[in-house]
Amino acid sequence: MKIYSVIFSSVVLLISNSYTMAQETPEWVPELTEDWEYVPEVITPGTNNQAPSDAIVLFDGTDLDSWEGGDWKVEDGAVTVEPGTGGIRTKKGFGDIQLHIEWRSPEVVDGDGQGRGNSGVFLQGRYEVQVLDMYENTTYPNGQTGSVYKQHAPLANASLPPGEWQSYDIIYEAPIFKDDGRLAKPAFVTVIHNGVLIQNRVQIKGPTEYIGLPKYEKHPEKLPLELQDHSDLVSFRNIWVREL
Amino acid sequence: MKIYSVIFSSVVLLISNSYTMAQETPEWVPELTEDWEYVPEVITPGTNNQAPSDAIVLFDGTDLDSWEGGDWKVEDGAVTVEPGTGGIRTKKGFGDIQLHIEWRSPEVVDGDGQGRGNSGVFLQGRYEVQVLDMYENTTYPNGQTGSVYKQHAPLANASLPPGEWQSYDIIYEAPIFKDDGRLAKPAFVTVIHNGVLIQNRVQIKGPTEYIGLPKYEKHPEKLPLELQDHSDLVSFRNIWVREL
Amino acid sequence: MKIYSVIFSSVVLLISNSYTMAQETPEWVPELTEDWEYVPEVITPGTNNQAPSDAIVLFDGTDLDSWEGGDWKVEDGAVTVEPGTGGIRTKKGFGDIQLHIEWRSPEVVDGDGQGRGNSGVFLQGRYEVQVLDMYENTTYPNGQTGSVYKQHAPLANASLPPGEWQSYDIIYEAPIFKDDGRLAKPAFVTVIHNGVLIQNRVQIKGPTEYIGLPKYEKHPEKLPLELQDHSDLVSFRNIWVREL
Amino acid sequence: MKIYSVIFSSVVLLISNSYTMAQETPEWVPELTEDWEYVPEVITPGTNNQAPSDAIVLFDGTDLDSWEGGDWKVEDGAVTVEPGTGGIRTKKGFGDIQLHIEWRSPEVVDGDGQGRGNSGVFLQGRYEVQVLDMYENTTYPNGQTGSVYKQHAPLANASLPPGEWQSYDIIYEAPIFKDDGRLAKPAFVTVIHNGVLIQNRVQIKGPTEYIGLPKYEKHPEKLPLELQDHSDLVSFRNIWVREL
Repeated sequence: MKIYSVIFSSVVLLISNSYTMAQETPEWVPELTEDWEYVPEVITPGTNNQAPSDAIVLFDGTDLDSWEGGDWKVEDGAVTVEPGTGGIRTKKGFGDIQLHIEWRSPEVVDGDGQGRGNSGVFLQGRYEVQVLDMYENTTYPNGQTGSVYKQHAPLANASLPPGEWQSYDIIYEAPIFKDDGRLAKPAFVTVIHNGVLIQNRVQIKGPTEYIGLPKYEKHPEKLPLELQDHSDLVSFRNIWVREL
Repeated sequence: MKIYSVIFSSVVLLISNSYTMAQETPEWVPELTEDWEYVPEVITPGTNNQAPSDAIVLFDGTDLDSWEGGDWKVEDGAVTVEPGTGGIRTKKGFGDIQLHIEWRSPEVVDGDGQGRGNSGVFLQGRYEVQVLDMYENTTYPNGQTGSVYKQHAPLANASLPPGEWQSYDIIYEAPIFKDDGRLAKPAFVTVIHNGVLIQNRVQIKGPTEYIGLPKYEKHPEKLPLELQDHSDLVSFRNIWVREL
Repeated sequence: MKIYSVIFSSVVLLISNSYTMAQETPEWVPELTEDWEYVPEVITPGTNNQAPSDAIVLFDGTDLDSWEGGDWKVEDGAVTVEPGTGGIRTKKGFGDIQLHIEWRSPEVVDGDGQGRGNSGVFLQGRYEVQVLDMYENTTYPNGQTGSVYKQHAPLANASLPPGEWQSYDIIYEAPIFKDDGRLAKPAFVTVIHNGVLIQNRVQIKGPTEYIGLPKYEKHPEKLPLELQDHSDLVSFRNIWVREL
Repeated sequence: MKIYSVIFSSVVLLISNSYTMAQETPEWVPELTEDWEYVPEVITPGTNNQAPSDAIVLFDGTDLDSWEGGDWKVEDGAVTVEPGTGGIRTKKGFGDIQLHIEWRSPEVVDGDGQGRGNSGVFLQGRYEVQVLDMYENTTYPNGQTGSVYKQHAPLANASLPPGEWQSYDIIYEAPIFKDDGRLAKPAFVTVIHNGVLIQNRVQIKGPTEYIGLPKYEKHPEKLPLELQDHSDLVSFRNIWVREL
């Protein structure tokens, strides 16, 4: 029977060793840091800046069905400001978004400084990323193309000549307010202009003001995207957003 | 003399009015918030994801002169991992960067999970954005394509089929350490995969570890960018960075 | 008439200068940056760590009317854990708060490591600032007194001997979640232990777990403050919060 | 021999089960998240706001040996502004600090608004936390007691009557600059006034300006703490800092 007890002891030893090891020198194994919980949605990316499959296409060149406001014209796959009719805004409201938008200032240059190819992408209708013909133009840098208007000059001037299509890829985090109206988290924006990073998640200080200092005021979580009528014949195309 | 004193009084009145107004009801004018100090550099953007004029081109399809390490092969404008020779790293070190890089996993699928088109973009040689053939593939999400390896799963799976070129546009903020080695500011990374935002300035927790938890260790401000040899025949092309 | 025209010219010059200056070089005056909008509430501070006039007193030494849960005892102006009856929690829920709380571990030391004067302040019932008798005691630092349990070791060990009253002054920012459950802003906590800063607005990684890694789960904006029954006879007194 | 083989099989099974489990469902054990690496320094806290053992005492009521600048007077354990002689600043420079300082405005009130018990705590000599007799006084809130001057009004007015000693407990994170002068991380400050949180890690926008907008300029990592001579007879005592 001796052999039995030897074997039995071995078994006990094995088990208790295993237990002791687990207690005293726990081993990290690769599987412990594998996180299977959140499975990212499978989407189909677009090619040549076209919308990925999970995007909301706001303007594909055909109509302004997703927009309201000014009486702007659609022609040749682009929509152009109709001066004096006011800006246009999406019917749908948005919070955090990735936005792709292309714009073109008039080929014939007329005016200078702020008076040349001026329009704007108004995130949530109140936080402006400036659109301007800044090719061989001069203005205050915190109001030039790609500026967060009067808050943050862009890191670089990556403008193309007037008449050429330019792109903005924007990552926007909406502000969060407390119930009593105070700010819980400011808005942030990243802007890539023609493939060049020009705003690196800068903190937005409040609605972008022409006069005076910005000051946050509580607003709904989702608000329309707006494009500005600044009297210049700026055109837009290929506009899509992904809700983040 | 009366006329003199009337005129004189008018002058005094004008001056004092002007003074009083300035004191009591100072007026904001638009010019006060025009900031002319920092003039952004004028650069020429690239087209079709080519490098802008202020970028450092790390690989344009011709040679690996900017790199050292593994004995990888350049062919048809692409460089491909030479399994077993180790990763390659830039001769130059980088801190904060905007990085564009394109990669392709082998058209013939061999293996699954982590064993399929596996490589990696190692920011500063220690913070990995995962490269993997994730097209109709399954693995732990925090290790899939575009993950900050074992730290942050991507927001979406925007993979293209094996054999197709895919792109990463990365915005990287290097960590900052105090003199005594403690962390003053962690690293952050934003990743756009094939035009789709998949990492939104996530906070990097430390070097990306296969086993165990990440932990920051003080390192130089600038360090080489590395591409991983994970035994799979992953190719790369069109690699450029802009120092931020 | 010459004198008239000289005077008249001077007046015109004065006016036009003034106008030109306003247009071209607008003057900043101190008043422009005086902000009269938000008037802070006038409150009466406490002396010797007593509650200020705008605080909610949770325990002033007399009763547990603001609490529910375990059957703890009030004696001599302090409340002491009744082992086995469970923790106690405030009837009212809280979001962002400034919290003052005083605690005392038993004068007679019995046990070591985690088994000595162990309790905990659970912010929103799930984020623990550890309470432990850490005077000449040894345990894992990310579980010692003032740690954010298993997430952040304190910056210093400012413990007093067992049997003495110690204080925590805590500034807590609650996490913010999106409607779909994802985290919009993590929680942060600052802890001052006996007047010494030991946690400097560290980012809380999720509920503080004994086993495994923390992971946020969406919860209501306001939740009760809890004190832990960890079987040790820890006492508390002078507990007040200010809602931020 | 059958019994042997049964036992042997059991052993093999046990081992292989154990192996399989480790591979497929690795178990988290509490020890894995115990972090023993960083051992916080043991210090002795002060009582009644006295300096803890690791603090640098800048003024204990006896002399101004740690200071230079204005010709201020030490009397009865306090130091008082000597109007017209200028501010005083520490000989030693500081970066991130916890600061305790007590101050008192003159018992006899003379003047109002900014002209009453005005002085200031200048972090790194350029970021002012305002000192003012704000007891039943009125001024622009972003310039009142505990404001980050002209940047952030305090959350509350926790002032004591003139002639009484008041305290500031300040947590300050110095800004970090890049080599080229750009800001890598702004400064942050938390202020507790008489035990009441009045600034909750607000972001400092640059040097606190009397006229115009703040703008960061690169400066050394460590700079003296300064106290302002604003012509009023403000006194200070019990000043200590802990370097963070």
